[in-house]
Amino acid sequence: MSSHTNTGTQPSQHQQLPEPTLRRLPWYLAFVTTLKRENQQYVSSTRIAAAVGVDASQIAKDLSFLNIRGKTRIGYSVSQLEKELRSFLGFSHHHNAVIVGAGSLGSALMRDSGLHRYGLNIVAAFDIDPQIVGGEICGIPIYHTDRMADICTDMEASIAAVTVPVDSAQAVADAIIDAGIRAIWNFTPCRIRVRDNVVVQNTSIYSHLAVMYNRLQLFDRNDK
Amino acid sequence: MSSHTNTGTQPSQHQQLPEPTLRRLPWYLAFVTTLKRENQQYVSSTRIAAAVGVDASQIAKDLSFLNIRGKTRIGYSVSQLEKELRSFLGFSHHHNAVIVGAGSLGSALMRDSGLHRYGLNIVAAFDIDPQIVGGEICGIPIYHTDRMADICTDMEASIAAVTVPVDSAQAVADAIIDAGIRAIWNFTPCRIRVRDNVVVQNTSIYSHLAVMYNRLQLFDRNDK
Repeated sequence: MSSHTNTGTQPSQHQQLPEPTLRRLPWYLAFVTTLKRENQQYVSSTRIAAAVGVDASQIAKDLSFLNIRGKTRIGYSVSQLEKELRSFLGFSHHHNAVIVGAGSLGSALMRDSGLHRYGLNIVAAFDIDPQIVGGEICGIPIYHTDRMADICTDMEASIAAVTVPVDSAQAVADAIIDAGIRAIWNFTPCRIRVRDNVVVQNTSIYSHLAVMYNRLQLFDRNDK
Repeated sequence: MSSHTNTGTQPSQHQQLPEPTLRRLPWYLAFVTTLKRENQQYVSSTRIAAAVGVDASQIAKDLSFLNIRGKTRIGYSVSQLEKELRSFLGFSHHHNAVIVGAGSLGSALMRDSGLHRYGLNIVAAFDIDPQIVGGEICGIPIYHTDRMADICTDMEASIAAVTVPVDSAQAVADAIIDAGIRAIWNFTPCRIRVRDNVVVQNTSIYSHLAVMYNRLQLFDRNDK
């Protein structure tokens, strides 16, 4: 699928990209985007290091996966680095996606224009509630879940965000895979089981809440 | 602060809780919630293990941090386990929170009633855009960021979700801490720097997108 091809990268290196590197690259992009808005021309790995709290040698290693080289004593071109990072991370391309479960969180995602800036093009949503099926949110049509296979094929969707209640998450994931979707962005705390060639990315924001509550409680105790 | 006290837990064990355990507990809660809806009475760690894909002995170890004991051959009481997990994770208590940045993602969080079910009580939002300051979303008032210190104190807020553009994230975080907030839920890809006694929980959903795009691309390549 051409929408997933990152031009300007070296495929052989890309394939071996370690996940920790992949998680750090968006931090560098965030910092470089700020520099670009300030019309700065060049940035060194030492300066990125100071801003994001990662060792400069690690940053140089991470950036070696990209098709960009820094100049001695000057560093990387800010605009080139920003462009390469966005492209490498897949943010420059459109990835057609559907939302399954157009309730509270699902409709929130449909309203979040930030996702579109990061390459996620939400083309349709699915639900079983007759009150919302047939309607639309921010121009995105909501269909009955029964129609998933046809519509995902027609719209060439490759990603499905799962925002259904936790007790239907596995059944919904099975239906999504049957509909030909290759990547599931799982917002439920359910541990979805899929076959080997399907990507699952878990983003359980409620689990993050638990970690935060716990840490806050410890600090409160230590203060007493 | 009483809102952060988990009754029914053992504080001495709670303080030593490892983060991996804290991240797994919501998975168990999700499964047990499903069983509760199906009116099931008991569940063994073996059965939880099969559902969530974690070793049964690890589950027994994780659950040993809670104030609950399973019965030999019967397992844990489903309703008691659900209640203990919710309480232990802090989901049974209300934690007053504010949203800083009432744009696309910020207003999406204000509309997500799911957060309230997990103990997050959003009491106010802040922004600098005169078009939205003075308004409200889902009954939550939006104030100018200048008023943060007073309003956070009045409303006894302890958590702030940061959903501002990445280039103002650090300045906003500094203002949040000056306003007396102790925990920052950072939705930006900025690496926020804070002093030691402030909690930062990073939930960079756009970084998760990058990981998903990359994995999807590898699968597409391997299929060829």
